[in-house]
Amino acid sequence: MKKIGVLIGKLYETSEYSEPAEAFKDAGYELVHIGKEKGEKVSDKNGENPVTIDEVADNVSPEDFVALLIPGGYSPDALRSDEKIVDFLRNYFTLDKPVFTICHGPQLLVTAEVLSGRTLTCYKSVIMDVKNAGANYVDREVVVDRNLITSRTPKDLPAFIDASLKMLKERN
Amino acid sequence: MKKIGVLIGKLYETSEYSEPAEAFKDAGYELVHIGKEKGEKVSDKNGENPVTIDEVADNVSPEDFVALLIPGGYSPDALRSDEKIVDFLRNYFTLDKPVFTICHGPQLLVTAEVLSGRTLTCYKSVIMDVKNAGANYVDREVVVDRNLITSRTPKDLPAFIDASLKMLKERN
Repeated sequence: MKKIGVLIGKLYETSEYSEPAEAFKDAGYELVHIGKEKGEKVSDKNGENPVTIDEVADNVSPEDFVALLIPGGYSPDALRSDEKIVDFLRNYFTLDKPVFTICHGPQLLVTAEVLSGRTLTCYKSVIMDVKNAGANYVDREVVVDRNLITSRTPKDLPAFIDASLKMLKERN
Repeated sequence: MKKIGVLIGKLYETSEYSEPAEAFKDAGYELVHIGKEKGEKVSDKNGENPVTIDEVADNVSPEDFVALLIPGGYSPDALRSDEKIVDFLRNYFTLDKPVFTICHGPQLLVTAEVLSGRTLTCYKSVIMDVKNAGANYVDREVVVDRNLITSRTPKDLPAFIDASLKMLKERN
């Protein structure tokens, strides 16, 4: 079964994980949750819906995954202080493999230094950070720029999931 | 009584508010809590220690305060999506008046676009954002750059508070 890596940490935005995760599983993909500590249970912003971390970034390789999903909330802020996760994401992204991210997710791409010249959208509070990272910010429900699919908030999830499933189908 | 403005929102880092707040009150300053909604009660990262918002940014002026305190946690992320708070901070900062901030606090200064050429420290996850904003990041417990005092984490609070009290004394 083809695998999608999910970069996830504590205080993730509930629906930005659960809705794409369900859609990807329904489409036949297996999810591998990558985080700071194997076996750790990370809860959402309400302290609920714990997700178990399957692997740390050291134990995975870009070839293992057909795509990466990065949900928002405060999870990206927690993950961007982990250099191994940032390095893994940079390696994955620079191979032009699909990365789907929403809300605060692009914070991780800023730290990975891969946004120069790229076009994307994100949550309002992160706009200045992606602009300062050299990206072209646009205010749209979903933006597809080569391997990168981005959205702004949970309201955009239907368009985000549709675009992500389409890219998965085209590339696999 | 001379006033210090505190820019504060939900999910603030407990000690990064409570310890400087206590020190400033002990030194004879009155605190005015500025946030998104007057009368709102904002809790810390543990959902505890509610702080009541005294004023919104529209109703205050830089002349009202001898300094601003910006605690960390996820509070700065919540505040940086409020354009009136960002505008107030930009106006205050560009008058060269004292701004004391720690941890994630510099995120607000990034959005206010006042960090170009300035030297500061901050929490690890925010380093790339302050560098991309044109600031010179240094890894020290406290950094004093003209009107700006910054620290990294709650561990740095004693040095942060000492430097802040010293600047208040020199300037008042």
